[in-house]
Amino acid sequence: MSDAYGKLLERMKDLGRLDAIEALLDWDQQVNMPPGGVEGRAEQLSLIAGLAHEWKTSDEVGQLLSEAKSDNGEFAATTNIREMARTFDRASRIPTELVKKIAHTTALAQNAWQTARAESDFAKFAPWLTQLLDLKRQEAEHIGYETEAYDALMDAFEPGAKSADVEALFKSLRDATVPLVKAIAEAPNPPDSSILTRHYSPSTQQTLSRAVAELLNFDFNQGRTDVSVHPFCTTIVPSSDVRLTSRYEENFLPAGMFGTMHEVGHGLYEQGLLKEHMFTPMGSAVSLGIHESQSRMWENMVGRSRAFWDFYYGHVQKTFPDVLGSVALDDFYRAVNTVSPSLIRVEADEVTYNLHIVLRFELEREMLSGRLAVKDVPTAWNEKMRDMIGIVPPDDARGCLQDVHWSMGAFGYFPTYALGNLYAAQFFEQASKDIADLPQRIAANDHAPLLGWLRENIHQHGQRYRAGELVEKITGKPLSIAPFVTYTKEKFSKVYQLA
Amino acid sequence: MSDAYGKLLERMKDLGRLDAIEALLDWDQQVNMPPGGVEGRAEQLSLIAGLAHEWKTSDEVGQLLSEAKSDNGEFAATTNIREMARTFDRASRIPTELVKKIAHTTALAQNAWQTARAESDFAKFAPWLTQLLDLKRQEAEHIGYETEAYDALMDAFEPGAKSADVEALFKSLRDATVPLVKAIAEAPNPPDSSILTRHYSPSTQQTLSRAVAELLNFDFNQGRTDVSVHPFCTTIVPSSDVRLTSRYEENFLPAGMFGTMHEVGHGLYEQGLLKEHMFTPMGSAVSLGIHESQSRMWENMVGRSRAFWDFYYGHVQKTFPDVLGSVALDDFYRAVNTVSPSLIRVEADEVTYNLHIVLRFELEREMLSGRLAVKDVPTAWNEKMRDMIGIVPPDDARGCLQDVHWSMGAFGYFPTYALGNLYAAQFFEQASKDIADLPQRIAANDHAPLLGWLRENIHQHGQRYRAGELVEKITGKPLSIAPFVTYTKEKFSKVYQLA
Repeated sequence: MSDAYGKLLERMKDLGRLDAIEALLDWDQQVNMPPGGVEGRAEQLSLIAGLAHEWKTSDEVGQLLSEAKSDNGEFAATTNIREMARTFDRASRIPTELVKKIAHTTALAQNAWQTARAESDFAKFAPWLTQLLDLKRQEAEHIGYETEAYDALMDAFEPGAKSADVEALFKSLRDATVPLVKAIAEAPNPPDSSILTRHYSPSTQQTLSRAVAELLNFDFNQGRTDVSVHPFCTTIVPSSDVRLTSRYEENFLPAGMFGTMHEVGHGLYEQGLLKEHMFTPMGSAVSLGIHESQSRMWENMVGRSRAFWDFYYGHVQKTFPDVLGSVALDDFYRAVNTVSPSLIRVEADEVTYNLHIVLRFELEREMLSGRLAVKDVPTAWNEKMRDMIGIVPPDDARGCLQDVHWSMGAFGYFPTYALGNLYAAQFFEQASKDIADLPQRIAANDHAPLLGWLRENIHQHGQRYRAGELVEKITGKPLSIAPFVTYTKEKFSKVYQLA
Repeated sequence: MSDAYGKLLERMKDLGRLDAIEALLDWDQQVNMPPGGVEGRAEQLSLIAGLAHEWKTSDEVGQLLSEAKSDNGEFAATTNIREMARTFDRASRIPTELVKKIAHTTALAQNAWQTARAESDFAKFAPWLTQLLDLKRQEAEHIGYETEAYDALMDAFEPGAKSADVEALFKSLRDATVPLVKAIAEAPNPPDSSILTRHYSPSTQQTLSRAVAELLNFDFNQGRTDVSVHPFCTTIVPSSDVRLTSRYEENFLPAGMFGTMHEVGHGLYEQGLLKEHMFTPMGSAVSLGIHESQSRMWENMVGRSRAFWDFYYGHVQKTFPDVLGSVALDDFYRAVNTVSPSLIRVEADEVTYNLHIVLRFELEREMLSGRLAVKDVPTAWNEKMRDMIGIVPPDDARGCLQDVHWSMGAFGYFPTYALGNLYAAQFFEQASKDIADLPQRIAANDHAPLLGWLRENIHQHGQRYRAGELVEKITGKPLSIAPFVTYTKEKFSKVYQLA
């Protein structure tokens, strides 16, 4: 290890520690903080964000990077230097004052958005959205881009992704999805999803969720679960202190059940990063799209599979004997795989989910470019809902106010959800080839083979490979919609007994 | 406001924000963190402590201080500059590396101490105690002192306090306490404290505790309560996000009940600091001794008073009808004021409590000076317990391992507990003169007059007055043991029907 790299590694780790402290401030705001704390918390977040930014972009780091780059080190060093240089390059273009301003504004905007959503009053959030769009436009201009500002922002979540490519991918995905949705809508014998909207005690759901998390090998010695309004997964100490949240709806079992499996998927990725690379890029996730592939795989390809319920339904039935006692396994399995147009993204089925993302992707690009004014967002949202999904929200709470992301200034984040679905299908197709008896293992409550496969092929590498490289390395092919289309067609043709 | 003071104020606030972030890392470690997080948390705490130290002692702050000192500003500025200079002067003497090492070691040592205490195995904690004593001795040498190293450490908790003065005060306190304890021990009709060790459901206790906190005007909009192994109060955002913890023992009602009142006392002080001075010395507590005066006043002078129970006993009786249904108010009141030798400091009665402090004060001075070897601490502890309190712990868990402080490296902290008792008595004597019908107000469940008195006389001033000045300003006299001795003699003569 060269002297420069050694010093750089120390700076990297300090930065990683600081980022994780920011994650704790954020987690605490969502899980614990009393209402009075919001102003002070905004100041604390701004302080830490500004500090992290200064460290990231310091002359010292720049100097160390140029010295360390000439090293021909082993791959961990190469990866860390490459990613640190990427971070340095991107961050150096943004003024610290802007970073602090964004951190401060988003902490307050999240609060305003919560109120706006609770009261379904878009006007209460609009000024914040305007302000954040302005700040993020400034950020994009500082960073620079080839064709459009949106690329500069999306790059923070999915490094290297370009709007034009995503647009083409989403177009073919939409084209493939629409006929399937149509065929399903016309199927003569749809599942009875009303069994999922009976009364399920939240405290019992919470107990069940913990059992599910344990069953999927989430390690409670290195993590915990809590309740929050918006489920999320965050890392306070990489691989050692990983925290999930869920929410439980009294009259909708899937929200807590599959929400937990989803966050567990994220959590397993974080817990699978190598401790020896803690707080450095080699010990960090590749991208949000790859992260989402992990959550969607456990939520959908495992959690909504027939194999899983072959094993687990008896237990759930016993947990809720009054509501599920007389419901057959097959009916339950079909119910949790109901496909139908819905208002809320996080509750959407596997087939229509991506349409919710395409809608957000289109709106965000229009907002950021200024083609769509903030005041017109509710109308535009509702029109796109009607055109793409076939229903119109009765209020903005269930429309354009439903997601937290814009209040976090996270424009360019949404596409990673659909990319995650595509990555997940392509990975799972390969895992099913590599683990010959995967469905049998799942039906035998043995999740170790799949987790081992993910640990070996994805988790242990940290950021060694970029998302595109990783997909090619594991599956031998670039990312495509084909595995996802095949997966959904096969699965839902059976569920809906299509010809 | 001079330019230099304006800049200094900004640095002060950033420092305050950073200190509060450190408090959140610590709170989270005690309330939420999964076991796996301990190493990473130690690194985070070390990072923030080192950073805060560098900021505190930067050349920029030194320069701004010397420029701002010549200002003749209003008292807020004078206070802030004086206290910032004190902080700067003290911190500048300590190397950053030592600060980081202490923060890192104490995070791990607290973990080791928890195990040692749970297993009552002093050997598991001894190496950490040795290491921390060594580190804190180094710190004291860097800071410097006139007569003994202990003074340099105590100064961090009770600015300006000197061992020799504390020793003299404690000697007279002990001399006054021993005859009262003796008279009480010989009283023919002691209270029946066994009613407090019946079965009290922890979850019911928790509900009751919240009600008590609300009744004493703790503001849940600017704070929260949680459960932890060791009750404490911490501030995440001054006056706006103040957090208490309690613990509930199934077979000991006072631990949760009076523990909550105690922490509420701390919390009311923190919530009473002025928002406009947030994150600066003018918006910070005077000293730990003054802080403790607030907790002890609400816990003992209010919470263990006859007036309080005249109002509240009916409610508690209804909450635990099986165990308290047939217990008379007078018997309950006498039971919660039982005086008897006990092993655990935090559960000690008002009279013998200070003897536990004198014991720790003596042992700490001996340990720090090297006159007492770490391996001999358990024996020395047990001998002093026998001599001063009259009982010997059956194991180290209930002896020298009972308190968290040494694992935090907080040598010199204990004296502030006894000082707090003395301050509390002297303040309460004055408050009882200023609020003519104070006992009647308490008995009418009206705690606003006392809280208003504390807000006006203590809370609003932040660090404007040093502890000694504050006592003189409010009571017209320097701190003495007389009010405490009078208070305990009067109260317990009645409880124990002494001649």
